[in-house]
Amino acid sequence: MTATGIPPTHADILDKRCFASVATLRPDGRLSCNPVSILWDGETIRFSTREGTKKVRNLLADPRIALSILDPDDPTRYIEIRGTAAITDDDDRRFVDQIARKYMDVDEYPYDPPGAKRLVVTVDIEQVSAPSIPSPSDP
Amino acid sequence: MTATGIPPTHADILDKRCFASVATLRPDGRLSCNPVSILWDGETIRFSTREGTKKVRNLLADPRIALSILDPDDPTRYIEIRGTAAITDDDDRRFVDQIARKYMDVDEYPYDPPGAKRLVVTVDIEQVSAPSIPSPSDP
Repeated sequence: MTATGIPPTHADILDKRCFASVATLRPDGRLSCNPVSILWDGETIRFSTREGTKKVRNLLADPRIALSILDPDDPTRYIEIRGTAAITDDDDRRFVDQIARKYMDVDEYPYDPPGAKRLVVTVDIEQVSAPSIPSPSDP
Repeated sequence: MTATGIPPTHADILDKRCFASVATLRPDGRLSCNPVSILWDGETIRFSTREGTKKVRNLLADPRIALSILDPDDPTRYIEIRGTAAITDDDDRRFVDQIARKYMDVDEYPYDPPGAKRLVVTVDIEQVSAPSIPSPSDP
């Protein structure tokens, strides 16, 4: 295990163009679950979002978060991460442009409307699971 | 919208060999998120699990659930479902074998240890979102 708890056997998944499903709690008490693109630098898992999204609303009210990240090349492998989220500004768009480079091979994230304010969500990893799935079905 | 709230424009995703990420709440207060295979019959979304899994423990204590289901062929399309879960027996293994036929092209789910007790989780759909993702990055 690394200092962050990501097993070295599974860290390669995080370097791929994987989708993470992010679970948050809504103010109405319901759970929410949505796909995001992530960046892993060997120590932290981060994703980009915009000011005003429901994800931001949810995480500002309750920072609990969980991520499920399936290996896009092998559906018997996944990582589950449980923890809390911290939100910081991405005013110079440096982070969202890193996401664009990883996922889209472009230097600047091209889809925001003018004036959109980008934020960085950093996951404080508390627990990690990486069970193997014996098949595409539920383990 | 169908009676269940699944938009007809996106219902095709549920018929594919898609993976749903399932968010639940753990007794320790943390969120959990894990991949499952699902079956959609036009009215209900169900998945299979085994007695004794953490998913079952979580849902028996708190039935709130959310699912994120990405189109395996088009990462700009996904469905988010929020609701509650009901757990029933699958003593004759009829349901898990349906999952095996959909996902594995085999008539019997082959991976359980002897004596494993299968359960069916049925999602009571309260809310559905199906926003388009402008790119592989966070919308």
